[in-house]
Amino acid sequence: MPDDTYDDLIARLKRTDTLRSVLGLLSWDEQVNLPPDSADRRAQQLQEIAAAHHAAAADPQIGHLLAAIETRSLPVGSDLAIVARYARRDFDRASRLPEDFVREKAALDSAAFHAWARARKASDFSAFAPLLERQIAMAMREAELMGWAERPYDYAIDLHDPGLDAAFIAPLFDTLRRELPPLARRIAETRPAPRPDMFRGFPIPAQRQFIRDVLGRLGFNWNRGRLDISLHPFCGGDGLDTRLTTRFDENNPLDAIFSSIHEAGHALYEQGLPAADIGTPLGNAVGMAVHESQSRLWENQVGRSAPFWDFFEPRLRDLFGPQLAGVSREDLLAAINEVRPGPIRVDADEVTYNLHILMRFEMERALFEGRLAIADLPREWNRLSEEIVGVTPEDDARGVLQDIHWSGGAFGYFPSYALGNMIAAQLWYRALDQLPGLEDDFARGDFSRLLSWLRENIHSRGKRLDTRELVVAVTGQPLGTGALLRHLAERYLPHAP
Amino acid sequence: MPDDTYDDLIARLKRTDTLRSVLGLLSWDEQVNLPPDSADRRAQQLQEIAAAHHAAAADPQIGHLLAAIETRSLPVGSDLAIVARYARRDFDRASRLPEDFVREKAALDSAAFHAWARARKASDFSAFAPLLERQIAMAMREAELMGWAERPYDYAIDLHDPGLDAAFIAPLFDTLRRELPPLARRIAETRPAPRPDMFRGFPIPAQRQFIRDVLGRLGFNWNRGRLDISLHPFCGGDGLDTRLTTRFDENNPLDAIFSSIHEAGHALYEQGLPAADIGTPLGNAVGMAVHESQSRLWENQVGRSAPFWDFFEPRLRDLFGPQLAGVSREDLLAAINEVRPGPIRVDADEVTYNLHILMRFEMERALFEGRLAIADLPREWNRLSEEIVGVTPEDDARGVLQDIHWSGGAFGYFPSYALGNMIAAQLWYRALDQLPGLEDDFARGDFSRLLSWLRENIHSRGKRLDTRELVVAVTGQPLGTGALLRHLAERYLPHAP
Repeated sequence: MPDDTYDDLIARLKRTDTLRSVLGLLSWDEQVNLPPDSADRRAQQLQEIAAAHHAAAADPQIGHLLAAIETRSLPVGSDLAIVARYARRDFDRASRLPEDFVREKAALDSAAFHAWARARKASDFSAFAPLLERQIAMAMREAELMGWAERPYDYAIDLHDPGLDAAFIAPLFDTLRRELPPLARRIAETRPAPRPDMFRGFPIPAQRQFIRDVLGRLGFNWNRGRLDISLHPFCGGDGLDTRLTTRFDENNPLDAIFSSIHEAGHALYEQGLPAADIGTPLGNAVGMAVHESQSRLWENQVGRSAPFWDFFEPRLRDLFGPQLAGVSREDLLAAINEVRPGPIRVDADEVTYNLHILMRFEMERALFEGRLAIADLPREWNRLSEEIVGVTPEDDARGVLQDIHWSGGAFGYFPSYALGNMIAAQLWYRALDQLPGLEDDFARGDFSRLLSWLRENIHSRGKRLDTRELVVAVTGQPLGTGALLRHLAERYLPHAP
Repeated sequence: MPDDTYDDLIARLKRTDTLRSVLGLLSWDEQVNLPPDSADRRAQQLQEIAAAHHAAAADPQIGHLLAAIETRSLPVGSDLAIVARYARRDFDRASRLPEDFVREKAALDSAAFHAWARARKASDFSAFAPLLERQIAMAMREAELMGWAERPYDYAIDLHDPGLDAAFIAPLFDTLRRELPPLARRIAETRPAPRPDMFRGFPIPAQRQFIRDVLGRLGFNWNRGRLDISLHPFCGGDGLDTRLTTRFDENNPLDAIFSSIHEAGHALYEQGLPAADIGTPLGNAVGMAVHESQSRLWENQVGRSAPFWDFFEPRLRDLFGPQLAGVSREDLLAAINEVRPGPIRVDADEVTYNLHILMRFEMERALFEGRLAIADLPREWNRLSEEIVGVTPEDDARGVLQDIHWSGGAFGYFPSYALGNMIAAQLWYRALDQLPGLEDDFARGDFSRLLSWLRENIHSRGKRLDTRELVVAVTGQPLGTGALLRHLAERYLPHAP
């Protein structure tokens, strides 16, 4: 059935998305390639393209097409209804944000990124504070412009995870805050600490080769993707051109391996979205919590499992024979599954990782509710780190300045990581139920059944279900903490034979 | 004196230039980084940004501002007159080209680039021919839209070198065609051929290190630039973010060294344009002939000179001691200054290089005047190669498919290379006159006096003088073949003591 209105809308959404993808490329290039003094030029470029993207997203013709579609009776859950719902959401957002605001935000993002990178290098929070202050003010102003003046933090959450808010998240996080610290303590008491300084002198080209092998076997499409180096690992681009980054340390090969598997989880989601629908709600991800569930599932449930290493340990030894000569299989697995509280979120094990999120959620809420001043943030960071994680950072570089997110104004994003861990565990137990012998596949280097299951249940659906609906539809259970706590206990606590 | 009209115009020109710079980045990334199957996405991106650039360049407000400025009496040669002249030229071009045309051209450029790369790999001209046919048709249509229907090839030349045309170029090229082949033969008769297979096993990281050292000493600003790898070396970006590419061959280190010095010559020009005026006629290059004069001067007059190697030979030996153990200084200089006709333009020595340009100029004219069909191009290429260069290419990959230019519709560009060689020689003799002991500087690794001289006489001027005016102003002579022929004879023919 030809439908010119719908086709016109879809074409406009895709063209808008193409401009977004150029912003993504500029940002990827900024973090991977940009010469140090060229930040001024990149800021100009981001401003111009952000303005062009904004103009396309706020094109009144999109509003007319949507209004025409909305007069029809759209069956709930139909593709048309899904497209109309999210296109309306994006259009309202774009058309309510003035172009000046969008330009200012793009310039601020670039300036704040560079200020953050410098401040972190010098461990000098004061050099970043004024830009963080401006980012918070911009986020509050944006919430106000969008009609969320009363709930600016919920607006920030909803931006990343449509339908979620602090009221939904807080009780889940309260449970984690009650259950996780004692679990982490019990694990620490019962597991031997891995040998220190086990890994020395792993040449970076060989690390890269190993990671390329792993990612290829997981299903990453190298003909539509790359792996590069940046200060902070991320997955840029989309399924049409997917750009992972990692960072290499010759004395810590596990860092690049697991950050790459994590980012590849994001990439597999992007590459699994229906290619023909990319740029429309039918071809875009549900939200960041589900996105993180994909990265976490591949990183933790798959990548840190014994069957995974049944296959990859010999390949690792082929590349790093001398370096691993004195490292037994038990040593290797102990290092991969080490649980030890530390100051850095991205270095954290899968148990204490969630504690890092709880403290960030608490601080973000306090910042947005005016209960915490920027100037007091480093002190509050260290206090919460001590209280929740059990560690005090040595300095601000390893404390309040460790994460890139706030420099880009990405508030309300951190909760997605812990929600993603919960969803990953729920999906994992469901996949184990439905795919008998799944872990035997891993031991043979075959991950295709799991990937197909995720493609069918998660990736191919686009935004047809929202986060909470999707979890119920796939797992039969509401989004909750149970599966995560079960997974951590089963993996890390000694269990009866 | 504040001038709101002028300031507004300049701001709009700069914003338009920022969009152009994003197109440049997309193109650089396409050649350096793009995953093989992601060309579809890149074509969409180029189309969208080309459309946005076109809309900005054709913004009627620029027309109004220009009209207001043009009613004033602008002193000839004043900055305001220069800005008005070239801004008018760019605006007319943009506003006469329909958006559909611009979109189609951007998509074609991308498709044709990939078709060319594949065709060259397979040495299969027929896979590229239909796209080349479309590029010629687009160029003819563009000339027609711009009011040059009677002189489409002159339009193509004028695009790259404002003020030049085939009638100016042809007599100069006739002189070269008369003088150069006998000169090349005399050189070949009197110079010993370098030893074959002299270079083996030069590791690429060390080649890169050597080139970084060379380029830094020439004055390339690494804080605003990069060096990467692509199939066809080029200098992308502008003075704010200058991206050179080269390609490495372990058995031919001179290829990467000289192509890098060549591209660095372009880069030094871009980085020497007044930074505050970039994106306006006062901060943009004169044209491609002058641009090529800069790359050629650094590559040939400087980089192939004995004093240059007085300084760099020991550094090369530090990095490649074993590889150069059996290579004497004379061997090295003989390889650097080898004169031997070959099928490939970019591999050609500085004598026969010009012959490659003459044959391309002849074919382009014939194509645009309808005297040559695309289907006959490979045969005509080989015929002219034999007649002018004295070599018949083994296959189309090393013949008609060797150059990237036509895939992007860059017709009328090749003449700039030979004109650039002429201008380089003219500038060189003038610099030698005005900077006594210049070559002694080179032997000490100091290139700063030459760079300052070029900055003052060429770079800092932007478009204030056009190609022919600039050559007269700096050298006191009109653009001609004399200096080039003198340089080649002095360097390559045995001379009386």
